Amino acid sequence: MLPWWMKWLLFICSRDGGRTMKTDRTDDRAAPHAVIDCDIHHDTGMGRIKPYLPRAYRELTDAYGNAVPGGDPRDGVADVQTLRQAYLDERPLACGILTGTNYGVQAAPNYEYAVELCRAINTYTVDHWLGEDARLKGSIIIPKQQPVYAAKEIDRMAPHPGMVQVLVSNGAFMPYGNRFYDPIYEACERHGLPLTIHAGMEGVGINNPMTGVGYVTTRAEWIFSRTQVMMAHVASMIFEGVFERFPTLRVVLQEAGVFWIVPYLWRLDQDWRGLRVQTPWVKRFPSEYFREHFRITTQTVELPNNANLQDELLRQIDAERTLMFASNYPYGDEAAQAAIWSNERDSLKRQVMGNTAAELYGI
Amino acid sequence: MLPWWMKWLLFICSRDGGRTMKTDRTDDRAAPHAVIDCDIHHDTGMGRIKPYLPRAYRELTDAYGNAVPGGDPRDGVADVQTLRQAYLDERPLACGILTGTNYGVQAAPNYEYAVELCRAINTYTVDHWLGEDARLKGSIIIPKQQPVYAAKEIDRMAPHPGMVQVLVSNGAFMPYGNRFYDPIYEACERHGLPLTIHAGMEGVGINNPMTGVGYVTTRAEWIFSRTQVMMAHVASMIFEGVFERFPTLRVVLQEAGVFWIVPYLWRLDQDWRGLRVQTPWVKRFPSEYFREHFRITTQTVELPNNANLQDELLRQIDAERTLMFASNYPYGDEAAQAAIWSNERDSLKRQVMGNTAAELYGI
Repeated sequence: MLPWWMKWLLFICSRDGGRTMKTDRTDDRAAPHAVIDCDIHHDTGMGRIKPYLPRAYRELTDAYGNAVPGGDPRDGVADVQTLRQAYLDERPLACGILTGTNYGVQAAPNYEYAVELCRAINTYTVDHWLGEDARLKGSIIIPKQQPVYAAKEIDRMAPHPGMVQVLVSNGAFMPYGNRFYDPIYEACERHGLPLTIHAGMEGVGINNPMTGVGYVTTRAEWIFSRTQVMMAHVASMIFEGVFERFPTLRVVLQEAGVFWIVPYLWRLDQDWRGLRVQTPWVKRFPSEYFREHFRITTQTVELPNNANLQDELLRQIDAERTLMFASNYPYGDEAAQAAIWSNERDSLKRQVMGNTAAELYGI
Repeated sequence: MLPWWMKWLLFICSRDGGRTMKTDRTDDRAAPHAVIDCDIHHDTGMGRIKPYLPRAYRELTDAYGNAVPGGDPRDGVADVQTLRQAYLDERPLACGILTGTNYGVQAAPNYEYAVELCRAINTYTVDHWLGEDARLKGSIIIPKQQPVYAAKEIDRMAPHPGMVQVLVSNGAFMPYGNRFYDPIYEACERHGLPLTIHAGMEGVGINNPMTGVGYVTTRAEWIFSRTQVMMAHVASMIFEGVFERFPTLRVVLQEAGVFWIVPYLWRLDQDWRGLRVQTPWVKRFPSEYFREHFRITTQTVELPNNANLQDELLRQIDAERTLMFASNYPYGDEAAQAAIWSNERDSLKRQVMGNTAAELYGI
């Protein structure tokens, strides 16, 4: 007999809608804590948002097709009804945070166009999703190419109670610690919203090539580059003093793995000791900034081949405070998600499955 | 009383020439295995190599100063006499591998000029170093900007018995798995020489910006980017099939840390399972290629804050077969080097301190 949470995880992550586990559903719903899924991709592609664009841009897409870098490689969930039937109503979810698709809008060279695309995505999300199901929360997509415009879009959308975070793609043309981005973080602090860095758009559009040595050849290398890029953002935000300038800012790292952070924080702590004379505004160990200011989601976690090692690594990242469940629905990797938890303690699971996200997002 | 090897490490790595430990030197020399140091930086800057340049380029540097990207930020050891007195004669070294300075020659836009600079460095190293002390071995510096020229330089220098590897900087404009570099690997295989990727020149000259999201601001971030770049090279070489095309090629990773490889290999193995249909030429688990084809040196190792964890991580990288001692003399970080070994077993230390390098380099 599998433990309840293992069944639950297999259940929630199974792509067949959980039909094989339905007989146990009553047990699962009796789980003693609320489950929050931090990453559900609803379709915010051009096919959905076009009615929300100004006429000039609608005509542009009529004439030239989908004029967004990176295209819409995957569609996400089409509408609320589909999400309810396939996922929400089938699982014991207290809350699902929508993260959209079409992040290429943040890699468009024309930031005036990006502003309109982001406005369309956010208004569409409120109109067609947040108003339809109280379990759903939204992410504010911003034209991060031009931070002053991005801050205006945060100011416009943050008053909606369903909007719980600001979302930027991992791909960028400059690391996120640069003062260039300060207007975005000011707006996040002003409204008490976390910033989520979600994997995607590395090397696309106006973004830098996806590795520190240029473009890669294969899709696998591109996926691995996501971790490298996230490492660059983490170092940049800590060492350029973002958390001294914005002491209440919280940052969520989505979909570039989990355990890479352990040896990386050792490296950061070690070299900070030797080099801190050059960055006097960094007042604490990098690992302290990390544990206070960063959260990291479970998709897609690396699978240690050794249970003791996994447990120690979870301790090293202070998983009870930093790790949050994300399914990446409808693209999740159920095998990885299920395997990681097979030996973990209940107190940790409660935190990861909902408590940490509830606290972060004020849900 | 410290164990012999701990004293030896403190001794060999101490910047004061080991004077504080001299009373124990006889014990240290009785160490039961040969020690090979894989990374000693001798000065190959313009001040040393200029007499070996063609007249046109000598005049160029007379007129414009040191026309090499990145300059010569650190000098390395001036000459053999200095190295003998300060390091070689003071320590129980069987062999030291010279790695030079001035890697900016590999980031120069003008590859015709880079060819002459590399020829000058290599000839200077043979004339002034390898001929002077039989314990010293050399690295062939190549104009990697233009692989066909690089292969010619390997062919020119490889017959010298003191030349034991080919050296490229970590910084590059294209990841090292790209077929662009194949002439270099053909030459390495032809002469049975390993390729060393040594940290440096990330984001300098014609190289790509040092992270997958562009240039960084602080020196600390630049140092952290080295690990990210090395991750890109490792994925690129494995997933673009370098080791299927060149099955005897060995690659040494120098000076970008050690333990980052553990979660990274989990990631590579996991995603290879899902994506291998797109890279059918990758026939084995990435971690298998790593253990067979890569070696990694101890400088600068991350310091786990937990002895059991360190031991498990050393097992994960198969340290007895893959890890090799490098002091990075005269810049080494003795504290990190000494701390890492305080709980390790003798069989591992023998491998790391010399046996693995002896086998790799045929010493």
